[in-house]
Amino acid sequence: MIGASFGLALRKAGFDGEILGVSSARAVDSAIDAGAIDRPAPLADALAEADLVFLSSTIGRILDTVRHIDPLVRPDALVTDAGSTKCDIVDLARQQIRRCQFLGGHPMAGKETRGAAAADAGLFQGRTWVLTPDEPAELETDAARAFRGWLERIGARVVVLDADEHDRVVSLTSHLPQLASTALAAVVGDVQKLEVSGSGLVDMTRLAASSYDLWRDILATNSGHIERALAEYIQKLEHMRENLRTRQLQQEFERGAALAGRLRRAV
Amino acid sequence: MIGASFGLALRKAGFDGEILGVSSARAVDSAIDAGAIDRPAPLADALAEADLVFLSSTIGRILDTVRHIDPLVRPDALVTDAGSTKCDIVDLARQQIRRCQFLGGHPMAGKETRGAAAADAGLFQGRTWVLTPDEPAELETDAARAFRGWLERIGARVVVLDADEHDRVVSLTSHLPQLASTALAAVVGDVQKLEVSGSGLVDMTRLAASSYDLWRDILATNSGHIERALAEYIQKLEHMRENLRTRQLQQEFERGAALAGRLRRAV
Repeated sequence: MIGASFGLALRKAGFDGEILGVSSARAVDSAIDAGAIDRPAPLADALAEADLVFLSSTIGRILDTVRHIDPLVRPDALVTDAGSTKCDIVDLARQQIRRCQFLGGHPMAGKETRGAAAADAGLFQGRTWVLTPDEPAELETDAARAFRGWLERIGARVVVLDADEHDRVVSLTSHLPQLASTALAAVVGDVQKLEVSGSGLVDMTRLAASSYDLWRDILATNSGHIERALAEYIQKLEHMRENLRTRQLQQEFERGAALAGRLRRAV
Repeated sequence: MIGASFGLALRKAGFDGEILGVSSARAVDSAIDAGAIDRPAPLADALAEADLVFLSSTIGRILDTVRHIDPLVRPDALVTDAGSTKCDIVDLARQQIRRCQFLGGHPMAGKETRGAAAADAGLFQGRTWVLTPDEPAELETDAARAFRGWLERIGARVVVLDADEHDRVVSLTSHLPQLASTALAAVVGDVQKLEVSGSGLVDMTRLAASSYDLWRDILATNSGHIERALAEYIQKLEHMRENLRTRQLQQEFERGAALAGRLRRAV
């Protein structure tokens, strides 16, 4: 979905080069039908031609690809990725990709549906796209400038972050919300009369419908930050439990409402 | 909002009796503008005429009204309410309202906006309306049958529950989601770069925008059940924290996804 949306977005923004898709036969057929790629290619053939290599799959598969592509890339190519956690990928790429530049990325535009059939040329419009260079100079190479130019043309808002800072922030803004939703749904799961609930529960359990398959790699590659985020959340809930009848709780409501308002202005 | 919506819904369903509004001058003006009431009246005058007394305000004000109205009601009247917790209200009404019937109620149809200007004749259509009689026979009096007839005509789905069971269920399906959202927003509040977040965080912090004024009474009148719900939630989160890299977490995702699916079929 992300890879095919990037192809569609590039086309819509005026890119007239060739876009090759490397995936299963079914996935590339779907991407061709969607107009997201021109043709499928084996990995080695695609890497021999590509100016930009965009790794968009699960974190486990991105790590696997990073381990194998160095002998196959062009020296003037840029390899980037769309993985939801960055430290493990960036650390591995630093060791493994030596013949060309690697620049970690995370387009923060999700959908519940997977696959090219759900691709959308406007997916990245106005949405954050994090880049995680080790040094600012990595953003100023010819290949990185060209890539950033296309990100701008597809409407993405580029945010530059240190990989570890990225992983810390998303542990709070993405991974903790997922686990909070899953835990809530698992606890409410024992209730028989679910018709006795407000619309808030529907909002609060939307993320809980997410598949573990998508989350296993995220949790495994960011467990340190996620453990700390969960610990903070548990501590906040304990504090609220001990202060249900005191004005302390009012302060937490005010803090929460302030964040809710700030978030709606930021995204 | 709830009181005025009930007035509008009754009118739309064909009720042709008089609807009196007891509130501040500003609130009754707004309710008249909305077409939800015919005229304002002082409490004593309204109670002297009313077949059905519908107490729709904060729990604290409902409790206050329940303490004072017994000398003023007609013996054939039914007093009911829209309070979000039931034990305290039902217990007090059992002691204080002796000259006519009281039947606790909780229409589970919310909106973020307060006041008659936000009232909606279709608010209760297809939504759960809990009734909490002490004995099933309380539903079969003439006054209760007439009330239930109107609930049916406005499209509400009546669910009969013991008051304590109601309070236990909503501690999990309504009060816990609120506190989970507030706590999450309070923890995420320290993050500077909020543009680095997914759409899930917006969903998960929608409830956090709720005002403490609406929640103070709910938390104070259901603290026992809420403490237990929070304890269960904290325990689940601890379990997930200890099992971030194990298959236990997959089970929690599956439990959560099952509830998310079941909820979407139930509401």
